[in-house]
Amino acid sequence: MKRVLLRNRIAAILLIISITGGYSFGQTPSTIVEDFQPSSVNQPGKEFPKVNSEGRVRTQIKARDAHKVQLDIGAVKYDLVKDTSGVWTGESAPQDEGFHYYQLWVDGAAVPDPGSLYFYGASRWGSGIEIPAKDQDFYALKNVPHGELREVQYFSASSKSVRRAFIYTPPGYEKDNSKRYPVLYLQHGMGENETGWGNQGHANLIMDNLIADGKAVPFIIVMENGSVKFDRPRQPKPETNAKTDATTKKPAGPMGGFDFAGEFKNILLNDLIPYVEANYRVIGDMNHRAMAGLSMGGMQTRLITLANPDKFSQVGMFSGGSISMDDLTNTPDFKKNVKLLFISYGSRELEKPRGGFGGDPKANTEAVKAAGMNTHFYVSPQTAHEWQSWRRSLKEFAQLLFKN
Amino acid sequence: MKRVLLRNRIAAILLIISITGGYSFGQTPSTIVEDFQPSSVNQPGKEFPKVNSEGRVRTQIKARDAHKVQLDIGAVKYDLVKDTSGVWTGESAPQDEGFHYYQLWVDGAAVPDPGSLYFYGASRWGSGIEIPAKDQDFYALKNVPHGELREVQYFSASSKSVRRAFIYTPPGYEKDNSKRYPVLYLQHGMGENETGWGNQGHANLIMDNLIADGKAVPFIIVMENGSVKFDRPRQPKPETNAKTDATTKKPAGPMGGFDFAGEFKNILLNDLIPYVEANYRVIGDMNHRAMAGLSMGGMQTRLITLANPDKFSQVGMFSGGSISMDDLTNTPDFKKNVKLLFISYGSRELEKPRGGFGGDPKANTEAVKAAGMNTHFYVSPQTAHEWQSWRRSLKEFAQLLFKN
Repeated sequence: MKRVLLRNRIAAILLIISITGGYSFGQTPSTIVEDFQPSSVNQPGKEFPKVNSEGRVRTQIKARDAHKVQLDIGAVKYDLVKDTSGVWTGESAPQDEGFHYYQLWVDGAAVPDPGSLYFYGASRWGSGIEIPAKDQDFYALKNVPHGELREVQYFSASSKSVRRAFIYTPPGYEKDNSKRYPVLYLQHGMGENETGWGNQGHANLIMDNLIADGKAVPFIIVMENGSVKFDRPRQPKPETNAKTDATTKKPAGPMGGFDFAGEFKNILLNDLIPYVEANYRVIGDMNHRAMAGLSMGGMQTRLITLANPDKFSQVGMFSGGSISMDDLTNTPDFKKNVKLLFISYGSRELEKPRGGFGGDPKANTEAVKAAGMNTHFYVSPQTAHEWQSWRRSLKEFAQLLFKN
Repeated sequence: MKRVLLRNRIAAILLIISITGGYSFGQTPSTIVEDFQPSSVNQPGKEFPKVNSEGRVRTQIKARDAHKVQLDIGAVKYDLVKDTSGVWTGESAPQDEGFHYYQLWVDGAAVPDPGSLYFYGASRWGSGIEIPAKDQDFYALKNVPHGELREVQYFSASSKSVRRAFIYTPPGYEKDNSKRYPVLYLQHGMGENETGWGNQGHANLIMDNLIADGKAVPFIIVMENGSVKFDRPRQPKPETNAKTDATTKKPAGPMGGFDFAGEFKNILLNDLIPYVEANYRVIGDMNHRAMAGLSMGGMQTRLITLANPDKFSQVGMFSGGSISMDDLTNTPDFKKNVKLLFISYGSRELEKPRGGFGGDPKANTEAVKAAGMNTHFYVSPQTAHEWQSWRRSLKEFAQLLFKN
């Protein structure tokens, strides 16, 4: 009888874990592996947060007078426990490999963890943590020739303001003043900005390492802020005047009708690309111009490249939609001009059927490939809609870029 | 009688204000001017913290279950007051113009304000706020030609590691590949790092604006991390073998004996300068090489330039010591080679007599000037040991640099 109760209790606990993706009882499970190491993205000299070999995050904060402190990661809040000196400590359930945003709650206040470095995502500068990944070597800082990540201010006539971009120039750019380079315009996701690909994406280190290994052609990467605020008053258009070009066309799926590429499209095409081509040693033609992005940035890539099939010859969408046979029918020049089409997702994103933004990405991509386009479909193993999927996507995409 | 009591009470309050530099009673003084505007260094879309025309900081945070929340700025903690919806609000006393680090306390936990951008200083990434200054135009982002702020990774043989530097290249650097530039090596203070001069110092915007106005010669600025950790075990030297060159010589003053320039000196002279001169279009001679720094960076500048009088022809120390007649006697080549010596302080730093690091800076500088050196002494009005003093110092110094 006692055995049955125990078995039932274990089953109940397992059920809760499988539902919540973790536990939130403020108790230390007896199974925790005690091999915690400081996170690689801690502030200088900070011991916490730490990560163990299971991918659990342990954090610690002094809050002598608090009565409830929680670690909030992966959409689950884990209770921390206070010791006699007023220091709170606690752990999360195992997290996927790679980078995750998180925060702390102190008596109802959502605050960054003072131990971590800060990153822009989820529409705020806040804490991030790095779960060591088996393949982390491809974005590690190594003693190889390094490119530069340049913070650049330029005037955008479309937005009537000075805007910021980050521009990666590959190793050797400063040395040989006669060489010109192809360019990739690379976009972040919703709630992120132009700092994301450099800070948490490690785009510069990924490129430095690929170039050192001879696996990628050196190219320039331009990163701007695609979350353009619609500050100017907008006149709603009467139904009959609705524009129907691909950029503003209502896409299928949950974000249908939201014109999230229009304003950024103007900045990109009318201001940023001309600025880059006038100020850097780039090859300023379609065959040497690529666009890619993650999540919202992938959707922007889809809309902008379909609407401008004479501008980009290489297109990448990371967790951000796909190109369907309908798209090719509607935009024959896209099929004619695009020499590389790359679609990727994290494996966990594909665990449930995906529609939206042009339909099922795998089926779409297979059909487009069968129709004769140079198309690649990449799935990042054991990752979700997060940066590890996108770092890996860039690594795969970069090895294919400008080789056709 | 009542009047006398009231007068005594006011006198007592004034006394407390003059002692603490503010108040910390969690009460809103009736004199607060209600013209608060969001700080210019808030996170995107955040309304709080705000600043009013008196320089008071008002912040706000939701913390429903907290019982004590404080704003901690200028070494004073100000109590916030909770409303019925669990939102805490409160103000500081008036702060000096310019940039200040600050933090919040929530039930005993010291945390960054989720409303502000984050800056590295006081040995942590944390909140900063900007009190609008009458002269803020000189570091404002304007529609002028902009230089670049480049994040650079290079290998340092001295530290056996890949290290990061930020390098400012002036407008036009990319355009004319035949032009070569002078270089300023510019250091931060203790508890800060290589990001400080770009992020909170606005060194790039100060230079862009001065160059646009024709007030400064275009030059390159190199910013590295001078807080070098002494990780390697060090053998204490027997007293009789003690080195006595100026770099490791015990300086007068409170930090006497701490070898805080030695390790960084090796990185700077043996690794960073050679890297910069091999990879950028610089004029690699003493006449076109300057060093300056703030606080600890000024002290490092003093020690390194005195010990290497054949390396730098222009020297700036911002709130970081001065050069005495004794220094010139001990290092005749310093007087012979240095074409510009610039010493500066915030006015509030000079309100009490200053010794240390070579004696009273104003008296020293007057003596050195009388001895025939091209010497400038600048005092930033109404500022303390803070970034507004150093922004203004760079602005003044930059207009003198490389013109002699």
